[in-house]
Amino acid sequence: MEKIISLAHGNGGKLTQELIRNIFLPYLNNPFLAPLADSAVFEVKGTKLAFTTDSYVIKPLFFPGGDIGKLSVSGTINDLAVVGAKPAFISCGFIIEEGVSISTLKKILLSIKKTAQQAGVDVATGDTKVVEKGSADGIFINTSGIGFIPPEMNLGLEKVKAGDYIIVNGTIGDHSVAVLSQREELGFDEAVNSDCAPLYDLVQKLKPYWESIKFMRDPTRGGIAGILNEIVQGKNFGVQLWEKNIPFREETITICEFLGMDPLYLANEGKILFFTEPEKTENILQIIQTHPLGKKAAIIGKVVANPSGKVYLKTSIGTKRIIDMLVEAQLPRIC
Amino acid sequence: MEKIISLAHGNGGKLTQELIRNIFLPYLNNPFLAPLADSAVFEVKGTKLAFTTDSYVIKPLFFPGGDIGKLSVSGTINDLAVVGAKPAFISCGFIIEEGVSISTLKKILLSIKKTAQQAGVDVATGDTKVVEKGSADGIFINTSGIGFIPPEMNLGLEKVKAGDYIIVNGTIGDHSVAVLSQREELGFDEAVNSDCAPLYDLVQKLKPYWESIKFMRDPTRGGIAGILNEIVQGKNFGVQLWEKNIPFREETITICEFLGMDPLYLANEGKILFFTEPEKTENILQIIQTHPLGKKAAIIGKVVANPSGKVYLKTSIGTKRIIDMLVEAQLPRIC
Repeated sequence: MEKIISLAHGNGGKLTQELIRNIFLPYLNNPFLAPLADSAVFEVKGTKLAFTTDSYVIKPLFFPGGDIGKLSVSGTINDLAVVGAKPAFISCGFIIEEGVSISTLKKILLSIKKTAQQAGVDVATGDTKVVEKGSADGIFINTSGIGFIPPEMNLGLEKVKAGDYIIVNGTIGDHSVAVLSQREELGFDEAVNSDCAPLYDLVQKLKPYWESIKFMRDPTRGGIAGILNEIVQGKNFGVQLWEKNIPFREETITICEFLGMDPLYLANEGKILFFTEPEKTENILQIIQTHPLGKKAAIIGKVVANPSGKVYLKTSIGTKRIIDMLVEAQLPRIC
Repeated sequence: MEKIISLAHGNGGKLTQELIRNIFLPYLNNPFLAPLADSAVFEVKGTKLAFTTDSYVIKPLFFPGGDIGKLSVSGTINDLAVVGAKPAFISCGFIIEEGVSISTLKKILLSIKKTAQQAGVDVATGDTKVVEKGSADGIFINTSGIGFIPPEMNLGLEKVKAGDYIIVNGTIGDHSVAVLSQREELGFDEAVNSDCAPLYDLVQKLKPYWESIKFMRDPTRGGIAGILNEIVQGKNFGVQLWEKNIPFREETITICEFLGMDPLYLANEGKILFFTEPEKTENILQIIQTHPLGKKAAIIGKVVANPSGKVYLKTSIGTKRIIDMLVEAQLPRIC
C-alpha cells in the first residue's frame, strides 16, 4: 500500500479499491456499508429506503452536454436508480473557492434546478462553505440522496449467474471524452456531448420486466471495465464482453487512439449496466431502445462460469483479452 | 449583492444569509428546503425522518479537543438532534488532496469511527475523490445524515413566544478559540479544548420535558449572536441576552480581547440553544447540568415582545446593546 494518497487512489481502479477495502472499511465497517453498493438500503416500517453520497470535483465546471450542477444531481440520482430506488430527496453541499463569480454559481444552480425538476426530486437540504483562494478549485459539490425502493423491485448481485446477459443503454465513454476535449492543453475541435443524465425514468419504464432484471450498476469512474471487475471480484462467475457489440461514438475512438486511452475504462454519467435473465433480455433491450436515453442500447456481454472473477473481451477478430482493473489514473477530476 | 464569492459569504453572518436567501433559494425553493432549518423533515408511513448535510473544511485538520473526523460526525449528528431526530445513518464524502499521508487519513477515520460508535450511528455510505496537489487543502469531508424523530417530539419555531427562556448547555466560543490557537501565525500557548461533541444523548436525557422544549438550534458558524439573529429575523419577537449569565472560559475572553473578537460570534460545535417554556425552564436546566456535556449550562436570555426581530444584550453594567448579525468574516475555515 502506498504511504500517501495519489491521484490513482481516486480513479476507480485498483488503488481506489485497495483504499476502500484496506483503509476505509476496517474503520467504518457495518452491515449497511459492507456491500459497497451504490446506495445503502434500510427499512422504515416495511418501506425500503436507499441512501447514497457522492462528491463532484469535475474540471472544468462546464463541459459539452453538462456542468457540475447537472452532473452532481444526475450522479446521485443514478446511484439511487441502480439499487432500484425512486429518487425523492437530495442534499447539496457546496465548497466554493473565494473569488468564484456569482454568475457562475447561478448558472450551476439553474442547472441543478432543471435536473432536479426533470427527475422529480427536491433539494431538501443544503450547506455552503467558502475557502480561501487556492484552497479549492472553483466549486466542489457533494450531493447525497434518499430514494424509495418499490416493493416490486428485487435486485441482488447474489441472483446473477452464468447465462445472464449484460445490456448497456448506449455509447460508452462520452462523458470522459466530453470533459477531456475541454481541457485547455488538449484543445480538440470535435465536441462530444457528455451522456450525463438522470436515469430513473428509464428504470421506471422497465417496470413490466423488473423481476427479470437481477442487478444494475452505473459505470462511472473506472468505466465498464472497472465496474465489471469490481462486480466479478471474488465471485464464482466472470464476464465475457463482445467487442463488436459495445456501442461507441466514432469521435470517442478517434480521441482514444490519439491519446492512447482505452474507452472501456472511460467514465460514463448516463449509463447503466443491466444484468438480465436470458429469456427476457430481448424484451428488456427493446424497451430500453424506445427510451430517449437508450436508443443505442445493446447486449454487450454475458455472465460466464469460467474464468470466474475475471472480465474478458472477445475481440472483433475473434481473440480473447483479459480486461483487468486499471492501476494508473487515465484522467483525474472527471466527476 | 457582491459579484463574487468572498470569505464573508461563508461565515454564517449577513452575507451568508443573503447568499442563501437571494441566490440559492430562488433556484432551489421547495417545501422541504424553505424552512431553512438544520434538517429537512419528511414522513414515511407516519414516521418522521430528518435529513441534513454539512461540509467540513476546517483548518487545521487536528485541533485541541478534536479533528475534522470527530467534527464532521458530531456536526451532522447535532443538526439532526436539534430538529429532535435520533441520528441513525450518516454518509461520508471525502475530497482528498494528492499527497495527504495515509496515516493522517487513518487518524481521521479512527476519530470518525469512535464518534459514530459513541453516538450510535452507522456510516452507511461513502465516497472518495482525489484532487491534484494545490486543488484542495488537505482533506474536506461532507457528512449527510438521516435521523428518526420520535412521535413525542414536537418542536417548532412557531411555538416560541415572549416569556420563553433560552438555555445553553455550557461555555461559549470554545471551538473557535481551540482552532484559532492552533493557527501558526498566532501561536497561543494556552490550549482551550474545542467543545466538539455529538449531542443527541443530551437531548434524549431531556425526554421527560420534551413537550416543554419549543425549539432548538446549534450555534455553530455565526455563534449565538448569528444564530439568534437568524431566528428572530422577521418574527414578532426578539431576544434579550443577559451578559452576566453567558458562560465563558476565562481563556476565551483573554484571547478575544487580544484579537478584538466578540465571543458571541464565535462558533460552537457542542452547544445547543434550548427555547423553553417558562414554567419548566429550571427543571430542564437541572437535567442538562447533570449531563457531562451540560455541567456549565445556564439560562442566558429570554424571548421578548419588543423590540421584535432584534437580539440585544443587557450588559453587566446594566446598559443595553443591540447584537447585530456579523458582516465581515471573523475567522474563516472554522468548521
